[in-house]
Amino acid sequence: MTGTVHLVGSGPGDPELLTVKAKRLIEDADVVLHDKLPGPEIIESIPEEKREDVGKRAGGERTSQEEINDRLLELARAGKRVVRLKGGDPFVFGRGGEELAYLRERGIPVEVVPGITSAIAAPAVFGIPVTHRDHASSVSFVTGHEDPTKDESAVDWEALAATGGTIVVLMGVGKLPEYTRALREAGMDPETPVALVERGTWPDGRAVSGTLETIVSVRDEAGIEPPAVTVIGGVAGLYGEGEE
Amino acid sequence: MTGTVHLVGSGPGDPELLTVKAKRLIEDADVVLHDKLPGPEIIESIPEEKREDVGKRAGGERTSQEEINDRLLELARAGKRVVRLKGGDPFVFGRGGEELAYLRERGIPVEVVPGITSAIAAPAVFGIPVTHRDHASSVSFVTGHEDPTKDESAVDWEALAATGGTIVVLMGVGKLPEYTRALREAGMDPETPVALVERGTWPDGRAVSGTLETIVSVRDEAGIEPPAVTVIGGVAGLYGEGEE
Repeated sequence: MTGTVHLVGSGPGDPELLTVKAKRLIEDADVVLHDKLPGPEIIESIPEEKREDVGKRAGGERTSQEEINDRLLELARAGKRVVRLKGGDPFVFGRGGEELAYLRERGIPVEVVPGITSAIAAPAVFGIPVTHRDHASSVSFVTGHEDPTKDESAVDWEALAATGGTIVVLMGVGKLPEYTRALREAGMDPETPVALVERGTWPDGRAVSGTLETIVSVRDEAGIEPPAVTVIGGVAGLYGEGEE
Repeated sequence: MTGTVHLVGSGPGDPELLTVKAKRLIEDADVVLHDKLPGPEIIESIPEEKREDVGKRAGGERTSQEEINDRLLELARAGKRVVRLKGGDPFVFGRGGEELAYLRERGIPVEVVPGITSAIAAPAVFGIPVTHRDHASSVSFVTGHEDPTKDESAVDWEALAATGGTIVVLMGVGKLPEYTRALREAGMDPETPVALVERGTWPDGRAVSGTLETIVSVRDEAGIEPPAVTVIGGVAGLYGEGEE
């Protein structure tokens, strides 16, 4: 009897932002494979005996995607009910597509269970809507892991700037100087509002705001650290508006 | 005693894709203001006596945003615990930003509770990841409600095409001929895979696929109707791949 793998999104970190289905599948699972991204509150709520951390190995080295794929396959072939728990949504920069393809090609039944992406939720809890009639008729998500100064960067910052919509950069703390410069060089107004949301929806979540020109200094003064998302566009100017 | 308004996303329609928090707030609410977008399964699970449908009035006319704002204010001032339940996520083309601003300006405490957007979830349950290392390093969301043939269209299809990332069009059935033409005219390859997902995550959900050139005929032959999302880009070609 082959087991099933559920590719489950854990949402942005608040255990109450798990879906009803994710909660049920975690409860029913034999094994939950996870890394650090679901956040401490969610991970600690899972009984220790069914947790398997594939984020780091003993030596501190990262488990490769190939090893994770192999382990999922092995557990499913052993008949286990497996939850592969991924931070946010499994299909938004989560490599879920690769895990799905790998397992399906080998005849393993896979179910995808979407989760709330922090790209939308982290700004939301700080009052920043990623779309708004008066500010943005589109929203684009990219990761900040790519270096925009490299020629082979797959992200076209010039085209993103030209959309006129909101740009949300996931994992966007480290390369903030590079991509804000790329956007300014692409002709985006240096006065464009930018907000940085650190650990949005976590108990210690916080946000800061500035402009395309000032946000790097704002980040440095506030000591903003990963995980964080960057929101670029008129909607970022709504941060804190109308609050007590 | 002023009440609180919770702007709550109901997710893509499957009651199990409600968040734990949304479920709790609905249970604790005095009144749940909703339209048709959360879908029949979720709406019917709410006790009738606390439901208030603001989607249509008796005559079949839509309730205006102003009337909804006023009703939220009135209920909050009467001390009610109000859930404003919105399909998907309140801040993804949901006018949640406007409701938030209106209420905060009048001193009403508002909490935003993100939901899973169908823009990500509907493709996901059909095996389509909106991002993928080999296919898309960005994803952009737009609505199909705008007419791309109008000069004043706020959506820049040419810039979206130039990003090279996935494009997801919400409410994208009716204007499919217009925006697929706009993307072809913007230089996008007519062979680009396109998938249409109707009622993704609902029990009767289904998906069809084609290319930027063929998808309008595919839609017509299959009789795809709203609500549906359109996925444009290499990832749409993964639909159905590796399934039994």
